[in-house]
Amino acid sequence: MSVTHPKGFVAAGVAAGLKTSGNKDVALVVNTGPRDTAAAVFTSNRIQAAPITWSKQAIADGQVRAVVLNSGGANACTGPEGFADTHHTAEHVAKLLGTSSGDVLVCSTGLIGERLNMPALTAGITDAATHLSDTGGPDAAHAIMTTDSVAKMATHNAHGWSVGGMAKGAGMLAPALATMLCVITTDADIAPETAQRALAQATSTTFDRIDSDGCMSTNDTVILLASGASGITPTEAEFTTAITAVAKDLSRALINDAEGASHDIAVTVTHATSEDAALAVARSITRSNLVKTAIFGNDPNWGRVLASLGTVPTHVAPYEPDAIDVTINGVTVCRNGGVGDDRTLVNLAAHRDVHIVVNLNAGDHPPVTVWTNDLTHDYVHENSAYST
Amino acid sequence: MSVTHPKGFVAAGVAAGLKTSGNKDVALVVNTGPRDTAAAVFTSNRIQAAPITWSKQAIADGQVRAVVLNSGGANACTGPEGFADTHHTAEHVAKLLGTSSGDVLVCSTGLIGERLNMPALTAGITDAATHLSDTGGPDAAHAIMTTDSVAKMATHNAHGWSVGGMAKGAGMLAPALATMLCVITTDADIAPETAQRALAQATSTTFDRIDSDGCMSTNDTVILLASGASGITPTEAEFTTAITAVAKDLSRALINDAEGASHDIAVTVTHATSEDAALAVARSITRSNLVKTAIFGNDPNWGRVLASLGTVPTHVAPYEPDAIDVTINGVTVCRNGGVGDDRTLVNLAAHRDVHIVVNLNAGDHPPVTVWTNDLTHDYVHENSAYST
Repeated sequence: MSVTHPKGFVAAGVAAGLKTSGNKDVALVVNTGPRDTAAAVFTSNRIQAAPITWSKQAIADGQVRAVVLNSGGANACTGPEGFADTHHTAEHVAKLLGTSSGDVLVCSTGLIGERLNMPALTAGITDAATHLSDTGGPDAAHAIMTTDSVAKMATHNAHGWSVGGMAKGAGMLAPALATMLCVITTDADIAPETAQRALAQATSTTFDRIDSDGCMSTNDTVILLASGASGITPTEAEFTTAITAVAKDLSRALINDAEGASHDIAVTVTHATSEDAALAVARSITRSNLVKTAIFGNDPNWGRVLASLGTVPTHVAPYEPDAIDVTINGVTVCRNGGVGDDRTLVNLAAHRDVHIVVNLNAGDHPPVTVWTNDLTHDYVHENSAYST
Repeated sequence: MSVTHPKGFVAAGVAAGLKTSGNKDVALVVNTGPRDTAAAVFTSNRIQAAPITWSKQAIADGQVRAVVLNSGGANACTGPEGFADTHHTAEHVAKLLGTSSGDVLVCSTGLIGERLNMPALTAGITDAATHLSDTGGPDAAHAIMTTDSVAKMATHNAHGWSVGGMAKGAGMLAPALATMLCVITTDADIAPETAQRALAQATSTTFDRIDSDGCMSTNDTVILLASGASGITPTEAEFTTAITAVAKDLSRALINDAEGASHDIAVTVTHATSEDAALAVARSITRSNLVKTAIFGNDPNWGRVLASLGTVPTHVAPYEPDAIDVTINGVTVCRNGGVGDDRTLVNLAAHRDVHIVVNLNAGDHPPVTVWTNDLTHDYVHENSAYST
């Protein structure tokens, strides 16, 4: 269950009043050791929220004792005052736990451009600290939800050690990263450099390959904490596999819960000349509003798929337009860049999952998949009514 | 009115049965001379419709007598058979007009991936040839409409010579170019090289700066025909100004008619370090579904504006995040990258036009504007119900 599945972690999630709904909105995750190894990856957006600036500094030494997370406000574009709020938040956690603020990471999610309600937040953190327990993972996962319809949690058991994780995110999902906060915990005994490599590898094929709406957030953070409480040091390959498994489960949970979606869409590109070529082609399709609205309409409109991938520059993805095949849910609707099998054989209305396979017939790179969802009335509704 | 406004042109638009609605769907525009100068720009999409391939070859010598255009089918991704259809179409026009097929351009618009109904198209062309007249411009403009709600026409009068034009397009609009067909005519006496330079310059600041949904078409074509019938040869600067005026009117008409839009959005970027930097920042905003849904919800959500422009790489657009100001309809809602004036002062519900001004405070490049529209329920509806 969530971040308290591995040994050496306690967590809590409480309602501090940051959300008008009264739902839980402050989470605390504490590594009780014996190790305090940590790694993280952050949004590549140049507009970075105050907690991003703070956490990048705090994790530089590869050691973290606690992560405090709040929903109900992103603390982004809030100036020096916003950074002071984050600093104060970390100091407050450190005082309660008897540690240094430099060992506390901060994550925030919610509306951009508004200051946090600091009295409510600090009171909530104090409350959370009194509720820390080794079964608190699910409460923490609930406390970081915004427009999520369900809390996202995952676990993975290895030989004598394990991995757990929680994540939030339901829109503004784009590489790299999705708009999301994610904390992954493990009781493996791992060096910081190994943890960072494993996390970077895991996110590059999971969180970096989901793309709900092409919009990249100011607050994206994926944190890995390792307590060493199992006393076991797996090989780097074993460790990376386990972290990737949890990251994959959580990233799929994010895309499956994307705002207003009625179809989950996997776009697989085969026979590209390179990884970059395959990814560029896949992303041109997953970002096409015309493809995404067609899928919403249960229309296997492969012409829009071709029109999308036609925008990828030749130097990025070499291919011949008249060599491309497109298969949608098993029906090859486009063959050699032209009309293929009967498109009416594709019954999209009967399936939530849509699998678009684009065979570029240009090279021998293994298949690469990017996940997205359709563009629906509910997406427009949720995102037009979010802040007002 | 439209393409028959300048001297030396006849046109027609007829219903050939390509559209199930029974509306006009075949247009013919003929240059009666004395000159047959022509220029064109085409989609940069690598997936190019058969008419694009044909017309690029036909215009290589800078001379064109006629343009035939059809709605009701894009003739894209139709293989060698589709190209043969286009060839046959040009031959048919040439025979009717007593010219060479190499002097006939072909444009098609409609669904990708389906063959044209050639018997209906050729019969329609024969019919159109009998209806050619110097007042036929509006009929031609109506015949190229697809999801357009109005026919787009524009004229410009210079000293003793003039320019006219028609265009279609209401979605899949993205630089470069918008999904669109456009024919511009003039009775100026102009050399082909001058015509090509003027057209390229005009489109770069008009059609290339509208972006409805970030989706680039397989059929985009802008054609310029010059009859020389006025006997006047303007300077290249005068000529470029006139062509640009008509291109600007038509491009604004396209974005104002974008599918399902409830707001027209102009994004102006000021004080960038270069034209490319300003354009990259503007386009990152005009392509953000989260910005566009917020505007639909009448929400001046400047945080989403900053999150969008934060995705532009530093080497493309240098700026400091905490130096950015954002003004929406006159209210500076973001100042120095942080909270500015009261966002509730922006009353988007009262205005169809939304003007977002982003001051990067990074350089002294003149303002650059890109036009788009909001993302609405009607956009989702129209684009999910288009082909089925």
